[in-house]
Amino acid sequence: MSDRSGATRVVVVGADAAGMSAAHQALRTATRTGRELAITVLDKGAHTSYSACGIPYWMAGDVDSGDELVARTAEAHRESGIDLRLGAEVVGADLGARTVTLADGEEVAWDELVVATGAPAVVPDWALRPDGTAYDGVGTVKTIDDGAAWLERFADAGDGAHVVVVGAGYVGVEVAEAAMRRGFGVTVLTRGRGMSMLEDEMAERVDVALCEAGAEVVLGVEVTGLDIEDGRVTGVRWEGGSREADLVVLAIGVRPATDFLAGSGLETADNGALRPDPHGRVADHVWAAGDCCEVRRRIDGAWVFRPLGTYATKHGRALGDTLAGGSLSFDGMVDTSITRFAFDEVHLEVARTGLSRADAEAAGHEPVVLVTEGTTASGYMPEAEPIAIWVMADRGTRRLLGVQVVGGPGAGKRIDAAAAVLWAGGSVDDLAWMDLAYAPPFATAWDVLQVAARRVAERL
Amino acid sequence: MSDRSGATRVVVVGADAAGMSAAHQALRTATRTGRELAITVLDKGAHTSYSACGIPYWMAGDVDSGDELVARTAEAHRESGIDLRLGAEVVGADLGARTVTLADGEEVAWDELVVATGAPAVVPDWALRPDGTAYDGVGTVKTIDDGAAWLERFADAGDGAHVVVVGAGYVGVEVAEAAMRRGFGVTVLTRGRGMSMLEDEMAERVDVALCEAGAEVVLGVEVTGLDIEDGRVTGVRWEGGSREADLVVLAIGVRPATDFLAGSGLETADNGALRPDPHGRVADHVWAAGDCCEVRRRIDGAWVFRPLGTYATKHGRALGDTLAGGSLSFDGMVDTSITRFAFDEVHLEVARTGLSRADAEAAGHEPVVLVTEGTTASGYMPEAEPIAIWVMADRGTRRLLGVQVVGGPGAGKRIDAAAAVLWAGGSVDDLAWMDLAYAPPFATAWDVLQVAARRVAERL
Repeated sequence: MSDRSGATRVVVVGADAAGMSAAHQALRTATRTGRELAITVLDKGAHTSYSACGIPYWMAGDVDSGDELVARTAEAHRESGIDLRLGAEVVGADLGARTVTLADGEEVAWDELVVATGAPAVVPDWALRPDGTAYDGVGTVKTIDDGAAWLERFADAGDGAHVVVVGAGYVGVEVAEAAMRRGFGVTVLTRGRGMSMLEDEMAERVDVALCEAGAEVVLGVEVTGLDIEDGRVTGVRWEGGSREADLVVLAIGVRPATDFLAGSGLETADNGALRPDPHGRVADHVWAAGDCCEVRRRIDGAWVFRPLGTYATKHGRALGDTLAGGSLSFDGMVDTSITRFAFDEVHLEVARTGLSRADAEAAGHEPVVLVTEGTTASGYMPEAEPIAIWVMADRGTRRLLGVQVVGGPGAGKRIDAAAAVLWAGGSVDDLAWMDLAYAPPFATAWDVLQVAARRVAERL
Repeated sequence: MSDRSGATRVVVVGADAAGMSAAHQALRTATRTGRELAITVLDKGAHTSYSACGIPYWMAGDVDSGDELVARTAEAHRESGIDLRLGAEVVGADLGARTVTLADGEEVAWDELVVATGAPAVVPDWALRPDGTAYDGVGTVKTIDDGAAWLERFADAGDGAHVVVVGAGYVGVEVAEAAMRRGFGVTVLTRGRGMSMLEDEMAERVDVALCEAGAEVVLGVEVTGLDIEDGRVTGVRWEGGSREADLVVLAIGVRPATDFLAGSGLETADNGALRPDPHGRVADHVWAAGDCCEVRRRIDGAWVFRPLGTYATKHGRALGDTLAGGSLSFDGMVDTSITRFAFDEVHLEVARTGLSRADAEAAGHEPVVLVTEGTTASGYMPEAEPIAIWVMADRGTRRLLGVQVVGGPGAGKRIDAAAAVLWAGGSVDDLAWMDLAYAPPFATAWDVLQVAARRVAERL
């Protein structure tokens, strides 16, 4: 089960964060363990190791070129000894014969298969022509090609152009910022209430900020179709309403790219996601990491779909290490995420970690919840900005269950201290009394995060 | 053992963070426990509950008036039912008779005594006239009166005036910033290498930043005296050198104000500090908290003198709660602190938590240490600023022992996540692999803190 040189043939499908983290870590670990690995990476696209999370900021003008989003070029990967084959789309896998099949019919044999195919953006039928291509002026925000297309569309659009963003999750809010900073009018449309990763009382602060900055926000509408003239979008329609639009951004989510595994015998979740163990293993000689997978939430043990670069690189690294004889593991996450909305006078940082109230109730907790308002720095300092902190703990055990933050500059990364408490399985008292850094430009004497935790602790 | 009304007579000496936190929490808890407390607070000064940490920012011009530094006025304390007596200096205590003696000879009886006298700034003999007052142009940075005096001196000083700051700890650096922002030339003089709370390789980054911003930094000199003309400072002298000066700031530390306890039978550390238990108890019916105390460092169990407002308010709160029949406790700290130096183009945030290398060796650890350089945001973002992170772990147990951070905006409060790991007694692997928030404006996909921890983990 090896190539002619005796090396184990590792085939990685997908050349982005998870796949390339796995490949490089495997090579690094192999120098220590003495394993001989022949690593081939297959990717249907033309780019490797790029930051999809950076694309909204490229669209906004913060980043000069798509090249800057590429962490490591194809040449650099090849110089490290990885056989990287771009434009190689895998369309099938045979776990018995240990091969994958490419779109052109070529079969590639492997001893170990790593699935790191990611999760492309969801494109609803109403956005597509009969030939399957999107109408002019309509696109997603996921790949380098997507970003380049948006830069072209932005450049071609007139000064008074209006951008409708469908979806108000992280990407939707980030793209709204980008379009506003480019000088366009912006409408954000969403099926639910927007920012579904936040509790109502926190999400509404984001809606308010979007409006204050000059965006239209339309909540609770399901888009049913587009108005099209000469193959180009001119408006967005929903049941009982419509909005003129020159450009339409689809930011309604992503879906694991695991169709090529259909019939392979590998089990997937309903959404198509794989569920690898902490070392990335999904079956004998088959591994997976990144956005094509669900991740395990430590707090309640739930499998959840969180396609985030930080999980992809961590799980990929553990996978690569294990593959080469190491023992690194990705021991799950606590559901931390962050973004910001910044335009003109508005600068709002948004972050969350842990369970939602619904998650907590589903897990059998008796959640006690409180929102506390304060400032990011001592009140008398010019740096002091409003911040609201949502804290949830379990009444019986006093265990910290979740924290959410919405506030001005300096608010967002405060979530990390709460995430650390959740990681350790700590209590709301730990969060309230532990030793966070205080000086007037950075915090109040009791950091607002600790005031928020203390207030919940007092109610248990 | 109570006043005529049957209430327990609590006498608090010192009306600042620790004392007033204790007094208010005692009243709050008493409403729940039904304890009857008659609380008297004695303070020799004219101000209560002010933020000493804010004084450098008042000097810099960030804060308009000393009143803004006062968290709660005397009237507000009295309205809460506290008998607050300002201008009441306690000069002696009799633990047997349960009295304290005021400077005017009055004896005040108590059932419970709370010592919260703080720690005044150290003034060396060379700064004093024979009558014990400081020379004109020379002062400390500790009280509201100090701050007011500095604002007057700054206003009186000519445009080309030069300020010499003696001491390069947190206060020294903060005052250097203040004086530079006021337009003065600044020299920082220090006995050792400056920023003694940091390791060499981190402290030198602060020295460099001070120089880059235009300050003179003179390390390794012990000031021996001042040049005085007509009672006014004109220069600072040390063995073999001198520096002209129009104003001299003394920022060489503080000392617990416990002289009035001499002969009372209470034990103090060599520096005069008390060592209360987590509830603030130092002896039967005698309590203490705040800057007149040492605090317990959880990591190694050492008693250390860290006169910080955040410990004062936390310990004071636990003390007040316990005094009124509650059970809150201040379970030590992990030695976290933070400051910044910002002037002109330079903006440096400085933070530390945990043990120093010397502390770790003294505690029997085998420390492994590494400094990692990275950026505060994804490299392609305009928010990305250089950051250096020092991480120390124990070779045998992999336990995280300490973290220090020096970097641009967004660097400082990263220390909180490390402090949370130390609080929980976690490992360097916890820090490396836990779930910190990632999005391009806030971090790299592996937060630089986690890269730094991972690199140490790989070397254990």
